[in-house]
Amino acid sequence: MNTFKSVNPATGEEFGPQFTNATQAEVAKIIEAAKAPVLSPADRATLLSNISAAIESDRSAIVDIAMQESGLPEARLNGELTRTVFQINTFAKLVSTGTHLDVKIDSADANYGMGPRPDIRKQNQPLGTVAIFAASNFPLAFSTAGGDSASALAAGCAVVLKAHPSHPGTTRAVFASIQKGIAASGLPKEIFTLVEGNDPQITHWVATHPKITAIGFTGSGPVGKILMDLAAKREVPIPVFAEMGSINPVFVTSSAIIERSEVLAKGVVDSALLGSGQFCTKPGLIILPSSHADSFLAEVEKYLAALSVGPLLNKGIADRYSAAITELAKKNSVKVFTGINSGKGISVTPTFFIADWKTVSSTPELLEEHFGPTSVLAIADETDFEAIARSLEGQLTATIQGTDSDSPKELLSILAQRAGRVIWNGFPTGVSVTAAMQHGGQWPSSSSHTTSVGTDAIYRFMRPVSYQGVSQSNLPPALQDSNPWKVPQQIS
Amino acid sequence: MNTFKSVNPATGEEFGPQFTNATQAEVAKIIEAAKAPVLSPADRATLLSNISAAIESDRSAIVDIAMQESGLPEARLNGELTRTVFQINTFAKLVSTGTHLDVKIDSADANYGMGPRPDIRKQNQPLGTVAIFAASNFPLAFSTAGGDSASALAAGCAVVLKAHPSHPGTTRAVFASIQKGIAASGLPKEIFTLVEGNDPQITHWVATHPKITAIGFTGSGPVGKILMDLAAKREVPIPVFAEMGSINPVFVTSSAIIERSEVLAKGVVDSALLGSGQFCTKPGLIILPSSHADSFLAEVEKYLAALSVGPLLNKGIADRYSAAITELAKKNSVKVFTGINSGKGISVTPTFFIADWKTVSSTPELLEEHFGPTSVLAIADETDFEAIARSLEGQLTATIQGTDSDSPKELLSILAQRAGRVIWNGFPTGVSVTAAMQHGGQWPSSSSHTTSVGTDAIYRFMRPVSYQGVSQSNLPPALQDSNPWKVPQQIS
Repeated sequence: MNTFKSVNPATGEEFGPQFTNATQAEVAKIIEAAKAPVLSPADRATLLSNISAAIESDRSAIVDIAMQESGLPEARLNGELTRTVFQINTFAKLVSTGTHLDVKIDSADANYGMGPRPDIRKQNQPLGTVAIFAASNFPLAFSTAGGDSASALAAGCAVVLKAHPSHPGTTRAVFASIQKGIAASGLPKEIFTLVEGNDPQITHWVATHPKITAIGFTGSGPVGKILMDLAAKREVPIPVFAEMGSINPVFVTSSAIIERSEVLAKGVVDSALLGSGQFCTKPGLIILPSSHADSFLAEVEKYLAALSVGPLLNKGIADRYSAAITELAKKNSVKVFTGINSGKGISVTPTFFIADWKTVSSTPELLEEHFGPTSVLAIADETDFEAIARSLEGQLTATIQGTDSDSPKELLSILAQRAGRVIWNGFPTGVSVTAAMQHGGQWPSSSSHTTSVGTDAIYRFMRPVSYQGVSQSNLPPALQDSNPWKVPQQIS
Repeated sequence: MNTFKSVNPATGEEFGPQFTNATQAEVAKIIEAAKAPVLSPADRATLLSNISAAIESDRSAIVDIAMQESGLPEARLNGELTRTVFQINTFAKLVSTGTHLDVKIDSADANYGMGPRPDIRKQNQPLGTVAIFAASNFPLAFSTAGGDSASALAAGCAVVLKAHPSHPGTTRAVFASIQKGIAASGLPKEIFTLVEGNDPQITHWVATHPKITAIGFTGSGPVGKILMDLAAKREVPIPVFAEMGSINPVFVTSSAIIERSEVLAKGVVDSALLGSGQFCTKPGLIILPSSHADSFLAEVEKYLAALSVGPLLNKGIADRYSAAITELAKKNSVKVFTGINSGKGISVTPTFFIADWKTVSSTPELLEEHFGPTSVLAIADETDFEAIARSLEGQLTATIQGTDSDSPKELLSILAQRAGRVIWNGFPTGVSVTAAMQHGGQWPSSSSHTTSVGTDAIYRFMRPVSYQGVSQSNLPPALQDSNPWKVPQQIS
């Protein structure tokens, strides 16, 4: 099939225009046309602001098509658009300061401790043309103009966006807004280009094109690993910043259950069902203390039984979810709690699995990420929590639900060796876009130690370059003594 | 052969004690014993200072054995020891400030632009136990206590050092000094452990051990690529920071030759022969303007003819050098200039190759790095310099030798897209250890965009971790409001 259409998950029906798979020649042409002009911090901030303003002004049209293509509720998508605009503006603010250039100036020093030192000056420079692979589960905030694209543009790169075929119309709408923002800045439209299609071959063509210098990806582990393999086997290997998801363990102490059993049970279920369970930060493993598990499980069972979720994003996700749920339900010593299947469109039944830790730890499928409204509740002796934490693989997040009477230091320390973000008395879903955010953990949750959310995401798409003995007039502006861009210069 | 001895390159003779290849079980035991205690910035700085002080106090014994094992002159090795101590002290100064923890604190904010924000705090944390592979060509500054080890220790990691078999006695001497420094700090000796051997299998065992979290390597491209493959195929892939060398092109403008032909010719030759041509920053490709090449080449030929170099570091390097030189000399349209073979120990003949750019660009072997006293002088139309620069692969450094009458901006910009360090009117050999240094370029000169020299090298061995909603008493010290370590905190 060389063409495809949008599908409305709420009905399961196709609608809208036909989209065509890009050919290899078209992919190459798009990539080769990419342009990344050098801009002053002020001009780059303006570009980003113009893009976010255009997206904001197209809000209702974007949210409308996103609703039709994702089945997600209007409030969620409005929030996601707000977040998308906010994160672009956050990068605009950062780049306007020039902090991201990380300028260091070491003047010539004949008496330097290890021997005479030449004048040497360093700044971060953009990698060039980068490929961003859009995610399905955040059709706005991790798609066309999402965190990866925004950070790459902020870094000064040209972006080639591989659209996610699950929301092609939304992608076109956001792409049009981005182009308005670029035009308003008087810049070439090839700063941001679009590759459309649902043929996996397109991903290969993009990832292996010689002009691509880095890959940003949010999605499944198998696809992330394919991209890493492709990138490593290129004549010139390139970095792949892949955020591949995890099971985001939540450890619940007995004192927490004693203090707030009902609130906690609802909190766990709500977090696991948020966005129909299609968040990479979904709590997929809840570890309960055997001493107090029964009452807590009763709360979960009761609360879940009355809940349904919105349709899943596409039929592929729903099929994989249903297959996984069916298999897991057959396992020995595994209990099942279910919610309600709404029966509308691409609908599924929320399904939780309950087993003791011995069963969970010896059943690899229970420790895998399953997209959709499911989670595993594992019952363990509370004195084994630290050992369990040590046995877990890398995670985006890890959470402890406890009280002031707990002594969680050692458990926190173990979890901080596995996860990029550790949480106390919160839930992993909900990722703020801020300087201190780390969204990216140890393997297999991520391919690198970088973050894909928050301002530090920009550094994935820059590399440091030193200039030695270069005269003032030939130095890049940020490195000149006169500092025409007024960027922070660390001088020593 | 399960044992080996040191070889004195100045005589080609074996000497000293017998060294034994570590077995797989021994390698595992060494790695599993590694310890990386959490230290305050002040205590970590003290550890580093104690190590550097111990090395300094053992200077004469270290330099003595290094001379015997490397054939390098005493002044060079004394300078290298000074540099080794200096770079450890530079890291001590950095970590004492806590800057490297890169602490960011974002307080809870109910009115945050994208929706309520929890309290979230981020710091860099050490990766754990890292493997450092020592280089042969800097038996002190890039070996046992060299830049990779120093930056990993500074980051808070435990170091497992794979000794280079070309200087096993030097390694043991420096290792003993490191252990004195650790003992003086009252810390466990397993912060720094040693794996000895000349069996390539040992490298595999170290790189694939599950407890190893990252690899630092300085050496040849083929070995760097083996390490990258091993690291990528592990159950948990790990980053490899490999600095693999390059040909460090030097572009010479006609105005530079007109202004200072003799000085320049001597400078180029001296830089290429420094350390017997065994620097990863050796200028291995000098691009000369056809309009003024003849007179310059005459200077080079005359100067080189009277020069000899010290013995190469080991027989393997000398054999590969001689084989490469013999092959290159057979190429069509390639002229050869030679110096003098000292005839002492592992000696070779300095040999330069001269050809027009068309020949060079169509002879891949002329564009490869060859360790030893050789370089390629390529003659090109000066108007083709930019096109030539665009055709080059990634480099550690790239240099322009010109005058004020040149307009090098475009050439500099092209070179800055390929190299980690661009140099104007200097030579690439000589790498200062400073905040603004970037030693690491684009592929294939390096495996990543990081630097292995200068203070930024520390960030290779740390990863950011965020703490969300964690109470003051359970936060790591650097993230607490009371800031007991007095580190810089970026608060917003």
